[in-house]
Formats: sequence, structure tokens, C-alpha cells
Amino acid sequence: MSTETITTGRLAELRRRLAEIVGERGLIEDQDEKLPYLRDQRGRYIGKSPLVVRPASTEEVAQVVRLCAEAAVPLVPQGGNTGLVAGSIPFEAGEEIVLNLGRMNRVRALDAENFTITVEAGCILQQIQQAAEEADRLFPLSLGAEGSCQIGGNLSTNAGGVQVLRYGNARDLVLGLEVVLPDGQVWDGLRSLRKDNTGYDLKQLFIGAEGTLGVITAAVLKLYARPREVVTAFAAVRDPGAAVSLLGRCRAASGESVTSFELLPRIALDFACRHVEGCQDPLEAPHEWYVLIELFGGREKGGLREALEETLMTAYEEGLVGDASLAETEAQRAAFWRLREGVVEAQRHEGGSIKHDVSVPVSRVPAFIAEASAAVAKACEGIRPVAFGHVGDGNIHFNLSQPEGADTATYLERWDELNSLVHDIVHRFGGSISAEHGIGRMKRDENARFKSPLELEMMRRVKAAFDPQGLMNPGKLL
Amino acid sequence: MSTETITTGRLAELRRRLAEIVGERGLIEDQDEKLPYLRDQRGRYIGKSPLVVRPASTEEVAQVVRLCAEAAVPLVPQGGNTGLVAGSIPFEAGEEIVLNLGRMNRVRALDAENFTITVEAGCILQQIQQAAEEADRLFPLSLGAEGSCQIGGNLSTNAGGVQVLRYGNARDLVLGLEVVLPDGQVWDGLRSLRKDNTGYDLKQLFIGAEGTLGVITAAVLKLYARPREVVTAFAAVRDPGAAVSLLGRCRAASGESVTSFELLPRIALDFACRHVEGCQDPLEAPHEWYVLIELFGGREKGGLREALEETLMTAYEEGLVGDASLAETEAQRAAFWRLREGVVEAQRHEGGSIKHDVSVPVSRVPAFIAEASAAVAKACEGIRPVAFGHVGDGNIHFNLSQPEGADTATYLERWDELNSLVHDIVHRFGGSISAEHGIGRMKRDENARFKSPLELEMMRRVKAAFDPQGLMNPGKLL
Repeated sequence: MSTETITTGRLAELRRRLAEIVGERGLIEDQDEKLPYLRDQRGRYIGKSPLVVRPASTEEVAQVVRLCAEAAVPLVPQGGNTGLVAGSIPFEAGEEIVLNLGRMNRVRALDAENFTITVEAGCILQQIQQAAEEADRLFPLSLGAEGSCQIGGNLSTNAGGVQVLRYGNARDLVLGLEVVLPDGQVWDGLRSLRKDNTGYDLKQLFIGAEGTLGVITAAVLKLYARPREVVTAFAAVRDPGAAVSLLGRCRAASGESVTSFELLPRIALDFACRHVEGCQDPLEAPHEWYVLIELFGGREKGGLREALEETLMTAYEEGLVGDASLAETEAQRAAFWRLREGVVEAQRHEGGSIKHDVSVPVSRVPAFIAEASAAVAKACEGIRPVAFGHVGDGNIHFNLSQPEGADTATYLERWDELNSLVHDIVHRFGGSISAEHGIGRMKRDENARFKSPLELEMMRRVKAAFDPQGLMNPGKLL
Repeated sequence: MSTETITTGRLAELRRRLAEIVGERGLIEDQDEKLPYLRDQRGRYIGKSPLVVRPASTEEVAQVVRLCAEAAVPLVPQGGNTGLVAGSIPFEAGEEIVLNLGRMNRVRALDAENFTITVEAGCILQQIQQAAEEADRLFPLSLGAEGSCQIGGNLSTNAGGVQVLRYGNARDLVLGLEVVLPDGQVWDGLRSLRKDNTGYDLKQLFIGAEGTLGVITAAVLKLYARPREVVTAFAAVRDPGAAVSLLGRCRAASGESVTSFELLPRIALDFACRHVEGCQDPLEAPHEWYVLIELFGGREKGGLREALEETLMTAYEEGLVGDASLAETEAQRAAFWRLREGVVEAQRHEGGSIKHDVSVPVSRVPAFIAEASAAVAKACEGIRPVAFGHVGDGNIHFNLSQPEGADTATYLERWDELNSLVHDIVHRFGGSISAEHGIGRMKRDENARFKSPLELEMMRRVKAAFDPQGLMNPGKLL
């Protein structure tokens, strides 16, 4: 990161020229108004920045980036600022300018027959989902923050969510990108082709790069046919191993129509039922483990429901499944999902929670949960692991609630220690210490602990090739 | 490319040291034995090379690459050498060594519950398909050369094929890679994770790079559930516009279970029925355009057949479809596919064929075919365009058979001229001049004509970051 602070005189000149580019309404300087752009989602950091710049077009972004490159002023590209690893806020030194894309929020085009939509970086995810729906199409990226996160951020962090199993991560949903490079040049890679083998797939570099290689200003995204049949089940499973086995059976029996396959332990249900309005146990008796299964099909009564029922019945007879309920109504479906989505909120009411967003091969999820749970129990008596999430992707949110009655602050002081313990196990399982949240500021040191020196060097070579001055989101990711 | 030729003395020393690494059986020097490694699939070029080196392990590849890097000898990485753009053979100058991966042909691991297979670069595609099938899984990459092409080449060229619509290109099927970098270092990126957001997605750089950034030695590939229901239809459509409309309807009605959606014009059927054994018109009356549709489902009698029948019936009533036949038996299904696959062979019997492997947005396929057909007819009276292929991906093999009775050699002299004419139109439609075959040697100049200077510069920056000496497959792609 640049160690030079922005002097008052330099800042005044920069401010004047930025105002020429974006206008007065494109600048935020007031401390209170700046706060939402400086504070991270988890509330762990509040950064400093003399200016938040909000350009309204690709050309304005390009001019801002060029100006800052010439002045050697570092930039923090920012979307909805809903990330969980402090990747989209400046550091406390106050040397970076925040480049917020929120005003670039147009849907530029939708081509239903090509199953594509072209959007600007500042479009809210939900806005894109709705635009697709109006054209009788589905944009399948779906995650908790969808009402406020922006697609530029989703792409820059390669967002995941609850439908990755069927439709892939954000990366898999991109056909083309428009990117402002660190020197201010605009790369027009806005292709809307399913097949294009004419060179390196440059867009892949910017997806998941957390703004360290350039600023994504627009994208062409894949759309899918809207499902006509949605089948949702809540099933008790014997253990995580039974969940993995059931997943394979559901994938096969449904012709790969499994959209979501989410694991929940009993403690997550207990927490949700205790603290989250409208949550109740969907099954008669309590069980140790559950899965929420959702399938998308093409026709009402198209056979998916029967396929799932048969699969669950066979699994029940074999002892993999203890009990199961299929949603009969949209309200019942929503109730199943409320349980799944209520877990994070519910954990807040149970004191401190030390979080992990990890992945391992799907087949190794059961062994991972067993070993990691035992290890944290040994390290911290009474700790309450809540291992839930996207088991279909091998992605477990291994969140550790504090022991009952423990002092929250004292418990949270063990954050790094427990992270380290869990991540070591993840690493031994060939896993990832950040499955979907990215690295940002929070996991940068931890990431460097596990990446091979060669892989870090390869990343640095890419960084140097595109941002030799190191001005794009410095101190994040790498 | 290195302009220094390999002197006899230098070569002898290099040969000696290579033999130490790969053994005598890992070297091919005899001219006749070398020929299959030097001649391109289309028979347009025969390159020269003093040596074909065939290492048997990643470590041997690494040592070979390191040795050549130190000696500044350029390498041509090669798989099954089935590519169509002369990307995997050396130039005529004889300065490059061929690094053939064919001996690295082990399936290292298969994890059915993780839906992954780990393979070495030299595995034949069909071998991988079979290994998957034995584990009751599907590896969906499928293309004409599958009996002899190797997965390392498939990944290096981001191969497409007939099931991209459902399962994606080769790129989309990769979870992890092992790569020998141009300096001989081995990057172990063999992860088998569905989600991993811990930095730049480096594997994407090597996929589709045609061996210009390093040598892929192994990969972790995604597997899918094996279909239990396969529904195949051959339908006459009013025109390409009707085909595109029908595609959208089939995608929706089947819950995105369309695996293949291939366009065929009448002339392709005529050619196939005339020249390819076992080909016959599946419909009673002739029509101008056809589509071959295939759906994969999870259960026998799972409803996909009815979904397709209903969709075709509605389209028939609206005039989009003229007639249609659903395969009742595996033999009938094979007969439909024989027509599709027979087109390339059949065209050989109709004299010279000037080929294009292009893509445009799916919605623009009809306008593209109309405009390009008119343009080539104007340029060459009596020319016979055979516009067929993967319309579901917007990928048309726009192959132009010579006028009846014309002199073949004279016609083929117009190859570059007609390529240029067609590619200009493709470019105006926002398309790609190489949808699935890559650039190699054959399309390098043509590609440079359409890529923006900035995009070429970005590609060069990547190349320089990984192969500063320019020793990996020089003169190809870039």
C-alpha cells in the first residue's frame, strides 16, 4: 500500500478534478454520509477516506481511475458493501478513495432468446432477478444479501449462495464483462456468447479478484428457464454421511434437478425455533441432523415430486432418513426456508459466534465435521458448533456459538485461535478456508499461511501485470 | 519465436540429457515414427522437430521443461493431436521439441460421492467417460474425436462438443489442475472443491491457453449423475428462427434438461443420405430445416418424453414445427445421431469445403445464417452453404461446399477470402471466429484482425507474466 498520505493541497486539487468528472452529487465528503461506505458489514472495522466518489457511467469510472492512477492515489472499488471479510472498505490510514458503483444501476439489455441480461455493476441483485422474471427467465444467483448487494460486488467476490449446486457460482453465470483497468483504459469484453475460444479467458481474472485488478463496470449474465415446478422437502437424516449419500441419490433420481441441498444440525433448529419468529420444527420428533432439499422442474406435476418421494422412501427404509416432510404449499416451503435462513440471526441471540466459511470435498464433509467438532470441543469446553450450510457444494458454515453462560468478549478473544485450529483441519482435508466469502482484509494473513509460495507468486505476477502501481484495493486479498 | 536453430552439437547434448530424464523409450527420433506427432489433423501442415519427448510422469515433464527453459529451446505441448487449427504441431523450421503427454494416462482417483475424477493429461476422453460410467456417473464432455483426443488437449483448447448446452464447455468441467509452468516449477492446483474463493482463479488461465502458458499434467473434473432417461427427437422446423424459439420452449418445458440441440439444413441431410452408410431421412416429406433434440432425465418414464411431445405438438400447431419423430429405440436414436455426425464426412464427398467454426448470440443465429449465406452466394455463384451445428450454443459450423462441378483446388484457393468475408459478418453480429476449435496457427492472423489492441495487449501481459522467454508453443494463439 502507498505509504504517502494525501496532503491537504493535493487532496483539494484531486477533489476539484474529481468533481469535474462526476459532479458535486457524485462526491460524498460529509462524515455521517460517508459512514455506510466506510464501515464493514460485520461492524468490525470502520475505515477512513477523504472522499467517496460515485460515478454514473463507465466513462466517468474510467476518468476517475485514470486521474487516481496519475496521482498515485489508491482506490477501493465498492458495490453494496455487504461483504463479510472487510474487502470493500478502506483502511484506517485514510489514504484511499472509495469508488462506489451504486449509481451505475441500469439494466442495459435483456435478450430472452439468448437467455442473457446485460447489467451495470451497481444493479442490486434482486433488481436483476426481477428483470429476469419479468421476461419469464430466471437469474439463479441467490443469497441472503440479495436485497442490497450489487452485481459488481457479487462478481468481484465470485458470490455463492443457495443455488450453486445447480447453477454454479457467480463466475459460472458470466458470459462477458466490461472492466476499467487500473490505468483507466476500458476493456470491452461484453460478449454474450456461449462459446468463444479466441484466446485467454480474460474475464476470469476479474471475477473473484475483489477489485484488485480493475473495476467491473458491466456484465453479460446467463439466464435460465424459470422453473414451473418447485419441490421442497425437509428431511431428518441419520448423520452427515447419510446426507451426502442422499444427495447423490437425489441428483440421480431427479436428473440433476437438485437446486439446493442444505444441512442443518439439531442445534440450529433449536436456536431458530427459540429466537426467530415463525420458526417451528416441521417434523414430529426431534432428530440430530436435517437437510433442506429443493428441486426445480419444468412442468407442474412433472414427476419431480414423485422422484423425490421415492428417493426419500427408499432412504427411509435403509435407515438413512428418519422422517421427512414435503412442502404442500408455498407457505410451507417458506417455513422450511425460514428455518434455514434463521440460523445466522438465531445464533446472535446465543452469545458470541466464531465463524468459518469453509469447504471440503463433498464426500469428506462428514469426517470434517466430526474431526473439527471434536477439536473445538477439546479446545473450549462447552462450545456449541453449529455446522450448517451448503453441503451440496461441500461448503459448511462451521460457526461456533460460545458455551452457555460464558463471557462473550472473553470468548470472542479466541477468534483467531479457533479459526487457526479449524483452518488447519480444513487444509488437511484438501479444503478451502474461504468457500464463498472471499479473503478481503480479514482472511489475508490466514490465506497466506495455506497457499503455496508458488501460488502466491503466480497471483503476484498477475497483479503486477495489470496493476503495477498496486493502486487497486491495496492490502486486500494478496 | 526463437530464431536460433538448434545446432547439431547442442542437440546431441540436449538429447543426452532428455534421455536421462525420460529414458530411451520416451524419445522418438525416427522420421516415420515422428510423423503422427508432426502432421496436423486436417493434413494442411507437416511440421519438423528433431525430437518428440514422451515423459511418463509430472516430475519428468517438469524436468524436461526446466531443461528446455535453461537451454532456451521452445516446446510444443501435445495431447492426441486431434485439433483442427494446427495448434499442437511444430512449425516447419524444426526448432521446437514436441512434448507429448500420451504416456501420462492414468486415472488417479474417482470419488463418486464428490462427483469428481482425477486424471492425467494423456487420458483419452473416452477412457474417462468409461471410468465415470463404471462408477455410475457421467463425464459429459463429448465430441467427435473422443476416441483419440486426450483430456490435456481438451482442457488446453477448452473443447466444446454436443452437450455444452447442458453441461458447459471443458472449462466448466474443471475443479482443479496440475500444471508445469514454463520454468519447470509444478503448480499443484489439484483441488476438488465446488467453492473456493481464496484468490485469483489461476486454473482459468491455463484452460484454453493452447499450451502457451504451461503444460497441464493432470486435472480434477466434475462428474454428473448418469441419465436414466434419454429422449431424442428429430424435428423439421420452419426456419432457423423457429429452431431458436423451439429451443427456449424445450428448455423451459424440460426444466433445463436439454442436453443437445443441433441444427441441420436440408442439404446436410441430402449429403449424409447420399454418402454415409446407414443414413436415411427420418421424416416422410422433405423440409428445409431440422433440429436434433436430446434431453437427459433422472428416471425412466420420468415425464421428459411427454414434456417434449407436448412442446413439439404446440409448436406444430403454431407452424414452427413441420413434422417430428421421437426415437422409440436406441437404434432409432443412433440413426438420428448418425445423420448429425455424418455431415462432416458427407461433405468430403461433395468436393472442397471451406470451413467456419463460428458463434453468435443464439438469438442472432437466424439473421447471421441468412446474411452470411447471401454474402457467400454473391461472392461465389453456386456455392453450397451447409450451416449446421450447436444452435443451442449459438455455434454454427458454417461450412461451404464448392459449387457442383467446380474445380476443387481452384475453389479451395478462396479459403482465406471466404473466411474473411464470413468472419467480418460474424464480427458485426458480436460473434466469435472460433467458437470451439481455438486459434492455434491457422486462425492467429485472423484473430488479431478482430481483437481490440487492448485485449491483445492484456493477453500479452499474461503471457509475459508466465512465459517471459516465450518458449511455450510459440507462434500459436498469440
